[in-house]
Amino acid sequence: MIRASIVGGTGYTGVELLRILALHPTVEIFAVTSRVDAGRPISDVYPNLWPYFDKPFVEPTLDRLLGSDVVFFATPNGTAMRSARELLDRGIKVIDLAADFRLKDSDVWAKWYGEPHQCPDLLSQAVYGLPELNREKIIGASLVACPGCYPTSVQLGLAPLLEKGLINPKKIITDVKSGVSGAGRKAELPVLMAETGESFKAYSVDSHRHWPEIKQALDQISADPVGLTFVPHLVPMIRGIHSTIYAELNTGEVDLQAIYESRYRAEPFIDVLSAGMHPDTRNVKGSNRCQIAVHRPMGGNVVVILSVIDNLVKGAAGQAVQNMNLMFGLSEEIGIPSLGLYP
Amino acid sequence: MIRASIVGGTGYTGVELLRILALHPTVEIFAVTSRVDAGRPISDVYPNLWPYFDKPFVEPTLDRLLGSDVVFFATPNGTAMRSARELLDRGIKVIDLAADFRLKDSDVWAKWYGEPHQCPDLLSQAVYGLPELNREKIIGASLVACPGCYPTSVQLGLAPLLEKGLINPKKIITDVKSGVSGAGRKAELPVLMAETGESFKAYSVDSHRHWPEIKQALDQISADPVGLTFVPHLVPMIRGIHSTIYAELNTGEVDLQAIYESRYRAEPFIDVLSAGMHPDTRNVKGSNRCQIAVHRPMGGNVVVILSVIDNLVKGAAGQAVQNMNLMFGLSEEIGIPSLGLYP
Amino acid sequence: MIRASIVGGTGYTGVELLRILALHPTVEIFAVTSRVDAGRPISDVYPNLWPYFDKPFVEPTLDRLLGSDVVFFATPNGTAMRSARELLDRGIKVIDLAADFRLKDSDVWAKWYGEPHQCPDLLSQAVYGLPELNREKIIGASLVACPGCYPTSVQLGLAPLLEKGLINPKKIITDVKSGVSGAGRKAELPVLMAETGESFKAYSVDSHRHWPEIKQALDQISADPVGLTFVPHLVPMIRGIHSTIYAELNTGEVDLQAIYESRYRAEPFIDVLSAGMHPDTRNVKGSNRCQIAVHRPMGGNVVVILSVIDNLVKGAAGQAVQNMNLMFGLSEEIGIPSLGLYP
Amino acid sequence: MIRASIVGGTGYTGVELLRILALHPTVEIFAVTSRVDAGRPISDVYPNLWPYFDKPFVEPTLDRLLGSDVVFFATPNGTAMRSARELLDRGIKVIDLAADFRLKDSDVWAKWYGEPHQCPDLLSQAVYGLPELNREKIIGASLVACPGCYPTSVQLGLAPLLEKGLINPKKIITDVKSGVSGAGRKAELPVLMAETGESFKAYSVDSHRHWPEIKQALDQISADPVGLTFVPHLVPMIRGIHSTIYAELNTGEVDLQAIYESRYRAEPFIDVLSAGMHPDTRNVKGSNRCQIAVHRPMGGNVVVILSVIDNLVKGAAGQAVQNMNLMFGLSEEIGIPSLGLYP
Repeated sequence: MIRASIVGGTGYTGVELLRILALHPTVEIFAVTSRVDAGRPISDVYPNLWPYFDKPFVEPTLDRLLGSDVVFFATPNGTAMRSARELLDRGIKVIDLAADFRLKDSDVWAKWYGEPHQCPDLLSQAVYGLPELNREKIIGASLVACPGCYPTSVQLGLAPLLEKGLINPKKIITDVKSGVSGAGRKAELPVLMAETGESFKAYSVDSHRHWPEIKQALDQISADPVGLTFVPHLVPMIRGIHSTIYAELNTGEVDLQAIYESRYRAEPFIDVLSAGMHPDTRNVKGSNRCQIAVHRPMGGNVVVILSVIDNLVKGAAGQAVQNMNLMFGLSEEIGIPSLGLYP
Repeated sequence: MIRASIVGGTGYTGVELLRILALHPTVEIFAVTSRVDAGRPISDVYPNLWPYFDKPFVEPTLDRLLGSDVVFFATPNGTAMRSARELLDRGIKVIDLAADFRLKDSDVWAKWYGEPHQCPDLLSQAVYGLPELNREKIIGASLVACPGCYPTSVQLGLAPLLEKGLINPKKIITDVKSGVSGAGRKAELPVLMAETGESFKAYSVDSHRHWPEIKQALDQISADPVGLTFVPHLVPMIRGIHSTIYAELNTGEVDLQAIYESRYRAEPFIDVLSAGMHPDTRNVKGSNRCQIAVHRPMGGNVVVILSVIDNLVKGAAGQAVQNMNLMFGLSEEIGIPSLGLYP
Repeated sequence: MIRASIVGGTGYTGVELLRILALHPTVEIFAVTSRVDAGRPISDVYPNLWPYFDKPFVEPTLDRLLGSDVVFFATPNGTAMRSARELLDRGIKVIDLAADFRLKDSDVWAKWYGEPHQCPDLLSQAVYGLPELNREKIIGASLVACPGCYPTSVQLGLAPLLEKGLINPKKIITDVKSGVSGAGRKAELPVLMAETGESFKAYSVDSHRHWPEIKQALDQISADPVGLTFVPHLVPMIRGIHSTIYAELNTGEVDLQAIYESRYRAEPFIDVLSAGMHPDTRNVKGSNRCQIAVHRPMGGNVVVILSVIDNLVKGAAGQAVQNMNLMFGLSEEIGIPSLGLYP
Repeated sequence: MIRASIVGGTGYTGVELLRILALHPTVEIFAVTSRVDAGRPISDVYPNLWPYFDKPFVEPTLDRLLGSDVVFFATPNGTAMRSARELLDRGIKVIDLAADFRLKDSDVWAKWYGEPHQCPDLLSQAVYGLPELNREKIIGASLVACPGCYPTSVQLGLAPLLEKGLINPKKIITDVKSGVSGAGRKAELPVLMAETGESFKAYSVDSHRHWPEIKQALDQISADPVGLTFVPHLVPMIRGIHSTIYAELNTGEVDLQAIYESRYRAEPFIDVLSAGMHPDTRNVKGSNRCQIAVHRPMGGNVVVILSVIDNLVKGAAGQAVQNMNLMFGLSEEIGIPSLGLYP
């Protein structure tokens, strides 16, 4: 059994990790920390976990984590980078669900996250945890940075075309939409139901922290640096991300459907929908799947890719466990929710 | 492996059965019928099941079902009673998720369902499938009638008090609320999102078909016949039932919390919340659990019981599989979703 | 023109008052205070008011209110009682939308609101502002306490029967449901969309501050003191209250429909729905109406009254303006939204 | 008083017209037709209109409409073109809220709407009813084609830049999102709450009927023909459209904020938000306003315009009444809802 601990167990990615790990056949949950709720039974805070978690949250100290085989950080940005080294030094693997190890350049990180990086030397060691693009490096890694939710959806949508150089990399537009759980479990006015329900809006149009992450990732795939426009929106629903991606085809002579099906045929969590279909976010609710459709409106040279995930699963906790499975040499799919909750 | 078939696989209880049975370790799905969608791949109709179901729906004929060990009817009322006997005669077990075998009196059935019952003699053979109240009879049964969603929630809420005669059975008020999936997957105006979203209403206040079912069930528990008022409401959400139950205590000297905890301690799917808590329907979303809290406003003699389930799981498909497990001598909990999807 | 000011203009009842008063033909908005947003243009905080309110919020000081004819308090409980006298002394009428002047007994107030009342002598002077029950006293009043949202809905639902002594006052059960805007515009975890959306729950079952208000009001109508059970619930929608009220009829020989229609025929904002109908909260969204239906399930002796309002209009800002119209001798209906926003 | 009739009064645009016209100070509602509900009191079908409409729907015959000054068609596409001439011949003005008179080329119409146009000669007479772009022609017109909801939002967003030739017209991308009321009041599976709630999807990506309408309109503004990509999405909310529009600036030396503010300063229903703001659809809920913000992500040469309307008001019934006001020489703003319902 793998002894897994979770730092920051009271946010939405934390409770989702608990939901998944509780049923993982080869994982034993070792410690779940929460500064705020230390001492309270986990099932009082999260009654959805009632039968499994009468044990309490503990203080987030190193002592409580010693004995773990792996520690997940489901914490705000800037937390994992303060503790990762001391865990790694003790042979404990680290999986960060926040942004601390996603960017390779510590100056870029400092610019977008507003403080100096605390362990820039670990950035080169950290492996970017998107298995469908980076599987070989994840296997056996000690420190994995799970991608952001938007970046996961966008990269999976664009990879097949960028890898083959079929689109103009200079003019990529990504219009992305997220449910409100993406904002986290924070008591803030804009995510009240009375503010967010029954309404739709864009936010952070001028700049958003997922832009440099996506840019870095796409640049690694593309022959030429990409020109990326990235506009996020807030959808009045709880879970789900839908990316609508626009690019210009370099050639009209191409079977897009075949390219996507071929690229993802062997991937256990990626579904390429039949030609003409449109993915609903509901179809991946609660599951680790990404569903993709590719369209060419009126047969023109603009390609439109639709890519949906559950932001808390494939965009966070599910992908984290997928990474854990790879890091520990397990079957990649084991213990990971694979069917959406519909309706 | 148990070969399980589903008749009526295109409704919400049908797809929920598929979601559960697909991951059940000792079940093999044999045939899934749909008059409307016969021939279409299941995963085209339900992309949430993409990786599991590229096989098609088939016509609902006896031939297609032969070879099954058990047939689930996830059909409208009045369907199962036309096919149950021919299956039972061939040794195939039958689990009906509709109302055909819930009432014991065929005249009562005819009155509430608007047509004569087609096999009244089977009514006495049919076992009412609420394991927490009727487990012994379900074990080994051939024909099980799964309770309605409201009746499940109400009976589990009231049983501990009625069994001990602690309340006045003549004055029971049940104010119940359901998400819209309870209305089924039918193209009807009242369940359009623009009609139902952002609104709340009562319906069928003058009479509702779940009244005789609840009445029959409570009468079996209670020393005296119950007087039952039952008012259903529609909640602008997809899944979930919340029953608020009011009754008059016969005595003030009673530890309600202890009675509930004691009654349900051994039940794998029933949680009695800590004193003072209120269950949210979200905590059981996608799971087979029923969560119950018991209150006594301002210490008076009115007891208020709060009971929540997911109408499609404990109120339908999950309970059906729980029954199947018992009928086939399996562990009762095997293959049944036990954690809610939160948020 | 009546010069109207609003203290506490940044909550939901405050912005709703602005929406209504902005279009009121005989009102001029004089000052709108906000401690938090003083100096900011109102239309930056509330872009729904864009064309009307480029003027800023001001500090909540007495100076800024002098010159008003009437001051509305759309503030938390415990605020208006600290300023009412100094306004009244200057001849400025006061309408409180919070609870400060709703209860007549200052000891009861202190018990339920957790601090001593600051001007108990004003409690007898204050008029309870439910026009349909108390119109004569409101006309010409200087200090009006607007009823709570739940109490408005419950009283309008019960008055016709209690006034005529047709029900047993000892056994009244009110199962009430509210949209989330009733919790106010406060950054608190339980009203996040991810917490409240797609879920339903009861809250404060053991006791709720609206209980003594309803009890006091019903006692004034009823020949005998009422026995009241009051259970509130939270509905995953933004606006709307639905009360389901249960009582025992004293006699079976009574035409309930006629009694309700007769009682409310002359009321401009109360609709008694046709026999057999059920009110949806959506039908009164954004309007000052209360819609009521009365049922008798299966012809028994339990009467079920369904009563819906928009908690922010008839339950708060609309009723406040209705009171203002009466206090200033205007037509009661002038300037008040009368049609629901559907869908 | 203008005698106004509505053909097709039972859809969402029909009831919204009733909501607006009922309170219009110079309009008298003459006849409201409905094939399905003829004979039923309007307020039984639409209880939100209770106090105003105890009169019944009538059959949609010419006879019932004679005596009107203006007839609104709130009907499915293909209806108004069968009746417009006989009304116009009798001096009755016609305002069509559907698509029958939006396209100028009858061949294009036939291609996109699947049948020959019934009165192609009226197409040149029909005036496209977007007042902010076409006001002079609307004044005094007899036949007005109200724009589609998406086209309204997109045109108002793009006009300031296209009119000045500031963007590359060949590469316009419009990513548009609509609430479910845009699908109309039809009993169809995809708009059930259980299908649409808590989910987000694109639809009709390959082609959508609003494409030729937008293309035609933008071509009239632009010096060169536009290249337009148009992708619609369905948002889990009832009302509201949000258009996110992407274009390439021809020059970097341009004050976009000033251009928008200048273009729309005199428009009563268009708000250009302060620099840096993002419009929420909620801010225009129930009102005839269009709110626009213009952004330039990270100072690059891609301009992003955000444009929101209420699809049933500025996108349908409100704009229709705005057109009526102009056609009859009234003040353009009279009787039109101007404040959003928030929250």
